[in-house]
Amino acid sequence: MSAYLNPLPQVELFSDRQWIDAMLRFEAQLAMAQAECGLVPQAAAQAIAQACASVALHPEALAAQARQTGALGMAVVAPLQQWLQRHAPEGLPWLHWGTTTQDVVDTANAMLTAHALEALQRQLKGLQQSLLHMAHEHAATPVLGRSLLQPAQITSFGFKCAQTAAALGRSSAQLQRLAAQALCVQLGGAVGNSAALGGDAMRVEQALARRLGLKACGYSWHTQRDDWMRLGMEVAVCGGSLAKLAKDWALHAQYEVGELCEAARGITSSAMPHKRNPVHCLQALAQTKAVPQLAATLLACMDQAHERALGEWQAEVVHWAQLWTHVHAAAAALCAAAQGMQVHALRMQAHIDSLQGVVFSEQLAQVILPLLGKPEAQAAVALCAQQALQQGQPLPALLAAYLKEQGHVVSETLHAQLHAAADVQAAAQASALRCHELLTQMTSAGQPAPLNESIA
Amino acid sequence: MSAYLNPLPQVELFSDRQWIDAMLRFEAQLAMAQAECGLVPQAAAQAIAQACASVALHPEALAAQARQTGALGMAVVAPLQQWLQRHAPEGLPWLHWGTTTQDVVDTANAMLTAHALEALQRQLKGLQQSLLHMAHEHAATPVLGRSLLQPAQITSFGFKCAQTAAALGRSSAQLQRLAAQALCVQLGGAVGNSAALGGDAMRVEQALARRLGLKACGYSWHTQRDDWMRLGMEVAVCGGSLAKLAKDWALHAQYEVGELCEAARGITSSAMPHKRNPVHCLQALAQTKAVPQLAATLLACMDQAHERALGEWQAEVVHWAQLWTHVHAAAAALCAAAQGMQVHALRMQAHIDSLQGVVFSEQLAQVILPLLGKPEAQAAVALCAQQALQQGQPLPALLAAYLKEQGHVVSETLHAQLHAAADVQAAAQASALRCHELLTQMTSAGQPAPLNESIA
Amino acid sequence: MSAYLNPLPQVELFSDRQWIDAMLRFEAQLAMAQAECGLVPQAAAQAIAQACASVALHPEALAAQARQTGALGMAVVAPLQQWLQRHAPEGLPWLHWGTTTQDVVDTANAMLTAHALEALQRQLKGLQQSLLHMAHEHAATPVLGRSLLQPAQITSFGFKCAQTAAALGRSSAQLQRLAAQALCVQLGGAVGNSAALGGDAMRVEQALARRLGLKACGYSWHTQRDDWMRLGMEVAVCGGSLAKLAKDWALHAQYEVGELCEAARGITSSAMPHKRNPVHCLQALAQTKAVPQLAATLLACMDQAHERALGEWQAEVVHWAQLWTHVHAAAAALCAAAQGMQVHALRMQAHIDSLQGVVFSEQLAQVILPLLGKPEAQAAVALCAQQALQQGQPLPALLAAYLKEQGHVVSETLHAQLHAAADVQAAAQASALRCHELLTQMTSAGQPAPLNESIA
Amino acid sequence: MSAYLNPLPQVELFSDRQWIDAMLRFEAQLAMAQAECGLVPQAAAQAIAQACASVALHPEALAAQARQTGALGMAVVAPLQQWLQRHAPEGLPWLHWGTTTQDVVDTANAMLTAHALEALQRQLKGLQQSLLHMAHEHAATPVLGRSLLQPAQITSFGFKCAQTAAALGRSSAQLQRLAAQALCVQLGGAVGNSAALGGDAMRVEQALARRLGLKACGYSWHTQRDDWMRLGMEVAVCGGSLAKLAKDWALHAQYEVGELCEAARGITSSAMPHKRNPVHCLQALAQTKAVPQLAATLLACMDQAHERALGEWQAEVVHWAQLWTHVHAAAAALCAAAQGMQVHALRMQAHIDSLQGVVFSEQLAQVILPLLGKPEAQAAVALCAQQALQQGQPLPALLAAYLKEQGHVVSETLHAQLHAAADVQAAAQASALRCHELLTQMTSAGQPAPLNESIA
Repeated sequence: MSAYLNPLPQVELFSDRQWIDAMLRFEAQLAMAQAECGLVPQAAAQAIAQACASVALHPEALAAQARQTGALGMAVVAPLQQWLQRHAPEGLPWLHWGTTTQDVVDTANAMLTAHALEALQRQLKGLQQSLLHMAHEHAATPVLGRSLLQPAQITSFGFKCAQTAAALGRSSAQLQRLAAQALCVQLGGAVGNSAALGGDAMRVEQALARRLGLKACGYSWHTQRDDWMRLGMEVAVCGGSLAKLAKDWALHAQYEVGELCEAARGITSSAMPHKRNPVHCLQALAQTKAVPQLAATLLACMDQAHERALGEWQAEVVHWAQLWTHVHAAAAALCAAAQGMQVHALRMQAHIDSLQGVVFSEQLAQVILPLLGKPEAQAAVALCAQQALQQGQPLPALLAAYLKEQGHVVSETLHAQLHAAADVQAAAQASALRCHELLTQMTSAGQPAPLNESIA
Repeated sequence: MSAYLNPLPQVELFSDRQWIDAMLRFEAQLAMAQAECGLVPQAAAQAIAQACASVALHPEALAAQARQTGALGMAVVAPLQQWLQRHAPEGLPWLHWGTTTQDVVDTANAMLTAHALEALQRQLKGLQQSLLHMAHEHAATPVLGRSLLQPAQITSFGFKCAQTAAALGRSSAQLQRLAAQALCVQLGGAVGNSAALGGDAMRVEQALARRLGLKACGYSWHTQRDDWMRLGMEVAVCGGSLAKLAKDWALHAQYEVGELCEAARGITSSAMPHKRNPVHCLQALAQTKAVPQLAATLLACMDQAHERALGEWQAEVVHWAQLWTHVHAAAAALCAAAQGMQVHALRMQAHIDSLQGVVFSEQLAQVILPLLGKPEAQAAVALCAQQALQQGQPLPALLAAYLKEQGHVVSETLHAQLHAAADVQAAAQASALRCHELLTQMTSAGQPAPLNESIA
Repeated sequence: MSAYLNPLPQVELFSDRQWIDAMLRFEAQLAMAQAECGLVPQAAAQAIAQACASVALHPEALAAQARQTGALGMAVVAPLQQWLQRHAPEGLPWLHWGTTTQDVVDTANAMLTAHALEALQRQLKGLQQSLLHMAHEHAATPVLGRSLLQPAQITSFGFKCAQTAAALGRSSAQLQRLAAQALCVQLGGAVGNSAALGGDAMRVEQALARRLGLKACGYSWHTQRDDWMRLGMEVAVCGGSLAKLAKDWALHAQYEVGELCEAARGITSSAMPHKRNPVHCLQALAQTKAVPQLAATLLACMDQAHERALGEWQAEVVHWAQLWTHVHAAAAALCAAAQGMQVHALRMQAHIDSLQGVVFSEQLAQVILPLLGKPEAQAAVALCAQQALQQGQPLPALLAAYLKEQGHVVSETLHAQLHAAADVQAAAQASALRCHELLTQMTSAGQPAPLNESIA
Repeated sequence: MSAYLNPLPQVELFSDRQWIDAMLRFEAQLAMAQAECGLVPQAAAQAIAQACASVALHPEALAAQARQTGALGMAVVAPLQQWLQRHAPEGLPWLHWGTTTQDVVDTANAMLTAHALEALQRQLKGLQQSLLHMAHEHAATPVLGRSLLQPAQITSFGFKCAQTAAALGRSSAQLQRLAAQALCVQLGGAVGNSAALGGDAMRVEQALARRLGLKACGYSWHTQRDDWMRLGMEVAVCGGSLAKLAKDWALHAQYEVGELCEAARGITSSAMPHKRNPVHCLQALAQTKAVPQLAATLLACMDQAHERALGEWQAEVVHWAQLWTHVHAAAAALCAAAQGMQVHALRMQAHIDSLQGVVFSEQLAQVILPLLGKPEAQAAVALCAQQALQQGQPLPALLAAYLKEQGHVVSETLHAQLHAAADVQAAAQASALRCHELLTQMTSAGQPAPLNESIA
């Protein structure tokens, strides 16, 4: 039922099939790594690898057995054991040797997460590029800056895009940085001390990590989940930045605002054929809604008792996948939204014009301040601003009139200053400047390193 | 991947198939109800009903189309339209008439929720019956009452079971009460005023409700979700009571405590064949972990803008199903745990004995209070309690010795009083009494009414 | 720092002073109730009551002692003990008799919550009355119904107000109903079986409840918090309804929408004197932001181990007060907003007019359906609707022209039907009807019973 | 009321007084920085600085005014304005120049957070040192490794301490790293483009940052809160690690386990003088309970509309302080717990002994595997393990007997191997090895840089 909120359903993340493959890959490569380190006979390792390539595991059967024991690892090991018994008993003593269920599941999870990270980065990059394109194109396109949903002063639409692109770029880089700490092999054995592997534990861990394209952190993270959580929390932060963008765009796309519009997509409502629904924003908002609470659930799972948790870890595995899936879908939705986004610069200008220059109150007050002093200048502006909006007349003209009424001489220079202070294009330049600064910062920060290098 | 945490995977809740069936049932019965009220020609209604019975909708195709428009309703309507066009065009003008996507989805959701409620009640009832059985059997079985994970005073194991049964009974009754307010037809049309149906809106709503086994509340709840949320929050509260039970049982089942033990289930760990893991408690704990946050997500979805939300409603639909699924699974896990639970009354007694009567400090202090006054009596008890634990000697005897040392005459009566004050079986009677009170309360409160009656 | 988000800081909820008073009242009335039941000498009870009236407890000192022991109850008892020792030693043996820290704190909390409930109900009632006033006045005032932040069809502003009033009324009634279950005396003693009071436990509980204006539920809720949580969850649901209202009003108050405006309050921005910030909506939104998560925290505290929790209960007490305080402040903010709210009906009409009748697409399609059949009628409307918006011409006229172009005869009757189908005032009548239905429902549901009656 | 859960109430974090001081410091140093950059006359800046040093602001008055306008900044500016009017009008035009309320509050918040960070680091360091001390002392002290609250295999108590110390060290280092990105001056002006300061914006920002001991990030973070959130999320992750420790210690401290005990602190229960409550663990658990949900609230506040949020930002400020306060208190509680913690190594050994060697099942199976093959070896161990526990006899001896019964010759060597496989001290060596590895890692990672250096 949630499928219709995900614009990229063909991208498979944390699927049953991927889980099974990753767990089998763990068992095979563990034996190979142990053989490489001289702990397991080469033939036994080969037999185990062959078993992993040969058994056909069905998610339902796997789940049914795991349900019985509470341990997913055993459900993978049992069919391998049967295969070996029949075809290559020399592998039997070394199957799943020196390891435990959580080692299998955590390591497989790290593999699946590396895959999810790549998928997420792809969407973030696509979205960022659309945003940078709009930032360049609209660096000086004036738009109302709004605070508390009210018009404040002038900014530029490009600057808004650049700010979001910068935030997403920071998330992207941080995800990569944290993945290098978090996407690790788990190999602690029953109680996290790798007792069975003894002094060879580190070497096996490193060999296995190399084979699986993961990192070896050198310690068990069975119940110390901080590095893992750090990565999850960054996914949540990224979800927050995406939610902000989706909300902004949905507000811009309101009929009465009408500054942005998603690409048309045929009739979307049976009863209201005229509607231009921001469907991708809707998807992004719906997908990010649970993200803060998913982060909370993961954090609430950190109090994992002693050497293996009773429930907290098992719940974490489930909700971890949901977090990634939601944020990935939100990024994909906004990526799609960005690609077809129509920017109505005329509408942006029209809203500014309808405000008659009152958004320049601060600057106009500054102009007349030498004549009136600060409190009087502010009062004059406040008074004239109200008139400007009620009578639909420009504030600079009203201020000039006010000054004359008050007996002040309004020179040509002052006139010019008043109009300059309320120059929309000039006002947008401040944002254009900041926009270009941000774009430069982003360029010099460069692209995050390719995925595999930074993790492995 | 989460499947292995659910002990009852065969119970289908909120499945794609069930969603499609419910939405088709809505479209068919809406037309029939409108015909019944004389608004739609009988033939047209029959045609629509036949269309609903004839089209084959596939979840993937449905999702693909809904994804495009953001509206699930249209995805159901389009194939019906095509069918009618070809086979019974007289139905066309009246298909989906006077209704909107959210009407379809909310009403279908109410139908699926009624089904989920029945499933949940079944598990709660099963669990409650096991608890009541244990409450009767162990009403006077002494066990340490523990506060802050430390021994406090004596209570009985049956009383603990009765307290939980009572809490679950309150949830069960409240769920039924709230369902009668929440499981309603939704029929507001585009903006919640049922404009198309005009003055007939209420009659159609009632006819439709009767046909679907739901309630007619007489108003649209498109964006006023309070009655719906009330039911959801009770599911969450129920989840909280289940989590408390799972935690208690897991603590009782610790090896060092050993007062409870889940039924054996073969070897559950590859490396540790001796372990007796509380697997059902694990499942219940894992299933309830996200429940508070799911409740929060649902509450956070309540700020649904104007007449139809942009994202909040769509997210609510998704996470609503998760809440029910998790709590149902937790109830099922504990129901399974309860059925095989082994109660080790001897171990309970042994822990009490090892405390040498110090848990009776309050009562013993009361006995010697007439001789010593309150502060001195408490101090004497505190001192002797420490000795009792260090030397492994019973506190009443030590207190008697202390009194003698201090020059008091310790009469036969006092001796008897001291021993009576530390009588474990007598102490358990207070809990037995409360236990029977609770059982009586529950009996007189009666069973919740059968599901269909109270909703319809 | 959060004080500036609360518009009613003078209303004290769960203050240190109130806590101390309530705890002392518990100790005094417990002794009196025990005396009333013949368990404690009258003189001792009087002495204890006098001690409670005489000791001066300072929050800091109390906290300092409680911090040492983790038990707030002892911190209250110790100074009473000292007072009695000095002034009325006959009270000493009976002070705090048969009770425990959690009894004191939970019962005091119930008293403070009864007070908070009254305060919340007061704000809800005020807000509801303002809403009902607006509902009556604007029952037929047309406003755009909006779905996904896009114009959908016509509704009325009064109907929107009535819908919110009804939701708040349901919360108000449910709060009262649940309070009658939740605001109970707690008197379980050390392990919840009231062992010290034995067979007199129920009688003492009832006497104490009567004296404190609370209810006696007849069982200990030390670690079974479901009834208590039910009340808390309703506060959270109420917060959700308030958040929805605040969001709606803030959206209506956007400069570009301009349909609502909070009362002016002088200059609210140093840099932007023209702004008309929806400050009370801001306060309500800020106050409700944490409500879902506070509900989650409370639910997450439900797994209270055995007979007294290690941390969960102590945390619950803290966050319980926050939940009430936030929701009360949100209600107060919206109550203030409602009292000064300016409704700009002309602006509502102007937005409708600017849509050129396209919001009546469904009704217009219905009119031309006999001529064109459903799919063609919908297509014609979709086409003309687009033109209407682009060219700023009314949709009914464009449809008539379209029909003529297509060779249809457009009779006077059809003309009239087209215009009738797009009649804004008529359209608003559907909502006016629903509005009055809701108002009638609310009247017949009556007011919630006065607080004290329903609780005690 | 929550004060009694905080063991360090004398440490003031985010107090009203600190807020006011920080906001005044911002206004003063902003003028000085602007003067330094040649934008403001030196005399005006001096006047403003003097005004800031002279006005007496009272939290209540400040809140009262802010409540009226929704803007805290104005409430600080108004009294400064009055002071300047009277004493130094030359400062008036430049007071609060080029800045906005959120600049003041965000920058002040960064200052207060820097202070809170120092306080938190102090507690983390203290706790870490106690843990390292225990890690060294108990590196080879055998204790049961427990999974799912059941005994698994042998580990060492020191290793557990080292694992926690490492996790806290990672948090400590990451907090410092993120603070360098997050604790920045905010100086965006009305809409985040620093329009008033134009091309001098960056220079002023840097000068101001230097004066306030913060960082200049070069862009406005008014509504892009990701860097700020990253720091907050790390505080939450740190809270998770603390919760894990508190839970572990509370489980070790159960009466029936008795492996750890907090320092005695006099009588802590009126009714149960014998109890040794883990009060500091209780405090830490209570303090961390809301941390995940506070993180969720902060994340949920990230969707800040346009250039200034309506409610989300204002709520964030409030709950930000709560997050830091809770985690700091939890760290302080565990620091206190650690300092007085009593380690009962004999009890640890006793629990191991009572298991009769069954925790060595894996190793024992490995020993007999050459004789029996894997499945039979495991079955034999499972059978004998059950007997060992039931009959209270050591598993190695039972296995030897079993082998003989089955007709195998049990050589001296095999006997020796069986006993070696179940050697507790040897088993603890695996953990001792890992423990020392972790300690070495931590030493070589070094201490986090002193606070001021890394931020400024």
